[in-house]
Amino acid sequence: MARINDHYRKLQAGYLFPEIGRRVRAFQEQNPDAQVIRLGIGDVTLPLVPAVVDALKRAADEMGTPEGFRGYGPELGAEDFLIDGILEHDFRARGVELEKDEIFVSDGSKQDSGNIQEIFGQECRVAVTDPVYPVYVDTNVMAGRTGDADDQGRYQGILYLRADESNGFVPGPPDAAVDLAYLCSPNNPTGAVATRESLAAWVAWAREHEAVLIFDAAYDAFIQDPSLPRSIYEIEGAQECAIEMRSFSKRAGFTGVRCAYTVVPKALTGTTSGGERVPLNQLWLRRHSTKFNGVPYVVQRAAGAVFSPEGRKQTGEQVAYYMANAGLIRDGLGGAGFTCFGGEHAPYVWVRTPEGLSSWDCFDRILGGAHVVTTPGSGFGSAGEGYFRISAFNSRENVEEAVARIGKAF
Amino acid sequence: MARINDHYRKLQAGYLFPEIGRRVRAFQEQNPDAQVIRLGIGDVTLPLVPAVVDALKRAADEMGTPEGFRGYGPELGAEDFLIDGILEHDFRARGVELEKDEIFVSDGSKQDSGNIQEIFGQECRVAVTDPVYPVYVDTNVMAGRTGDADDQGRYQGILYLRADESNGFVPGPPDAAVDLAYLCSPNNPTGAVATRESLAAWVAWAREHEAVLIFDAAYDAFIQDPSLPRSIYEIEGAQECAIEMRSFSKRAGFTGVRCAYTVVPKALTGTTSGGERVPLNQLWLRRHSTKFNGVPYVVQRAAGAVFSPEGRKQTGEQVAYYMANAGLIRDGLGGAGFTCFGGEHAPYVWVRTPEGLSSWDCFDRILGGAHVVTTPGSGFGSAGEGYFRISAFNSRENVEEAVARIGKAF
Repeated sequence: MARINDHYRKLQAGYLFPEIGRRVRAFQEQNPDAQVIRLGIGDVTLPLVPAVVDALKRAADEMGTPEGFRGYGPELGAEDFLIDGILEHDFRARGVELEKDEIFVSDGSKQDSGNIQEIFGQECRVAVTDPVYPVYVDTNVMAGRTGDADDQGRYQGILYLRADESNGFVPGPPDAAVDLAYLCSPNNPTGAVATRESLAAWVAWAREHEAVLIFDAAYDAFIQDPSLPRSIYEIEGAQECAIEMRSFSKRAGFTGVRCAYTVVPKALTGTTSGGERVPLNQLWLRRHSTKFNGVPYVVQRAAGAVFSPEGRKQTGEQVAYYMANAGLIRDGLGGAGFTCFGGEHAPYVWVRTPEGLSSWDCFDRILGGAHVVTTPGSGFGSAGEGYFRISAFNSRENVEEAVARIGKAF
Repeated sequence: MARINDHYRKLQAGYLFPEIGRRVRAFQEQNPDAQVIRLGIGDVTLPLVPAVVDALKRAADEMGTPEGFRGYGPELGAEDFLIDGILEHDFRARGVELEKDEIFVSDGSKQDSGNIQEIFGQECRVAVTDPVYPVYVDTNVMAGRTGDADDQGRYQGILYLRADESNGFVPGPPDAAVDLAYLCSPNNPTGAVATRESLAAWVAWAREHEAVLIFDAAYDAFIQDPSLPRSIYEIEGAQECAIEMRSFSKRAGFTGVRCAYTVVPKALTGTTSGGERVPLNQLWLRRHSTKFNGVPYVVQRAAGAVFSPEGRKQTGEQVAYYMANAGLIRDGLGGAGFTCFGGEHAPYVWVRTPEGLSSWDCFDRILGGAHVVTTPGSGFGSAGEGYFRISAFNSRENVEEAVARIGKAF
């Protein structure tokens, strides 16, 4: 008799974004004429830049010729031209030296941040911030590292580190014993960014406790202040305690193109039940080569083009466009009396709900009253209750219209 | 202290194909002038057909426009145009009715066949054929469903069903209690194909034992006899007991493009520890929407083009080309005294090693003597010892040359 993975039954309701999708569809069915503006899911809206489109088309042509055709890709998930671009532009330019076989190219940071827990033991204790990107938590629930959820949606066995106004939404390391800690900076959903000092405290803590940091830097391109760290490896000693994830999704509009990568430094180890130290790089390589089959060649070429001079210029302009939107949201909602956080080094503004509304009530009210889709803060964890996330990913016109409509609705 | 997943330590040596890659690279370094012909990994060699290249390029252009740009895809992994094409051409054309939300589009059957075990309980007993595609086994080892491997590489706790000359390489269902059984037809690596009768026996067995069949039909396009089943759902009752996987990799040259899908019928259930029946479709949807983020839009369009009249004609010609290669291999090696199996409804010929050679010795001898890469049968399991797999994926010229060289070398 085929038994199911009972841990799936512990998962709370739907995954956040499908649930939002269902509510928006229901609203649209009842209000077919409403012009809904989507500032919810955090999906980019600007078209692919010309350098990327050209690279996709050139690669498609290559694939149509006997000489240019490529089948299965290499074990690390991509060819050298892409890995070299990553090493040069994302790391060496920031003073970080990594080796080729420390970079694993994949089809998304969501996948990587969900899959990385597989190489760790069942008994590992996990810490996350609250609010948090739900994938970190849900994938650990599915893997059986937690008990049931309480009535706030917090799972037994996970340590939640409250990110709130008192700590500027950047909690420091815990006192409790923890084996894996998920960090995200610039943060989804709060838009907060970790300073060099806060990351250094985490690195020192992880090294002292032999814990592993899982550092999600999917939004690094939105950091405006060059003195802020973009990679955790800018912190001395981080290669011995941290895995880092990066994505092309937001920096280059790749949410529908799918390319990301994970760094697992060779200096990073975990411990077997017998007390032996094992390089995590080898374990992740085994997972990657057994359960993944490389990124499409045309997508590799598209990602490679992001590092070309034109690609950097064109995608940089898109990032600047979205960041100008973020500024308009902060200013507009702030001017309308909302209390706003984030949005200075991240494409997300984190807003306190007015009038003591709950996050979902505020979501429904903004959808119903302003026809704008936001993301309820409580969808990211109980400490997100009383906030909503609003995304800068949309046209200038829609952002201005959305801000005006929300201001009017309250 | 971060503990690793100790189950990874049970895995035997490297995953098969990386190990072959290492041996071939070592040979080439020592023999830089040798013209190595690769009939090993089973990677396609013909370029993408024009219908697919055109679709990729059109989609790239679309993605470069504000109106045509697409970000995150739908929960099921692809848009309706692709799922509709699948339902129409892969199923309705064979008399099988499925619903849209029973089709989950992904970036590969390797991934799907590796990930599917996640929705099942840890205690499930797994059966595989021997020889077998290593991913089915390795991913269950990683998940902790097995003990250690014995000196033949067989893991404790897995039931191996011997596929050999006595049963035409298509074993029937076991007597033992098993919860999950992986079947692959047309088979990788043996090239054998299951008849309607053999699949009907498996379906009857699965329904009687409340087991789930994981049916990998990645090579269905190579079936030459229209009376042979292409889908397990052509068998009455299979929707209550089987998950099916299909791929564009081999039928349309997508190994470097990445598109596949998995069917989880809504009638299929598993059992909770409390004895409750739960639809597996809902569990897989939860996994898919939490740990996956859709297939690139350009790839969806490329896969959709496989179903167009030109796409079907052009990819059909490629399949016919490879099958003519398979015939040349069977005839050529047969004429040289080898005993060959498969290759009639599959792009793989399964060959008994001559002179009682072990599979890896034969691999090394064919590589060293004929400069041809094959795949050692023992890499697929202990019952593959004494065989090698040779793939029809190459140019006519290379196949003819390889067959002649192997004939001469022995």
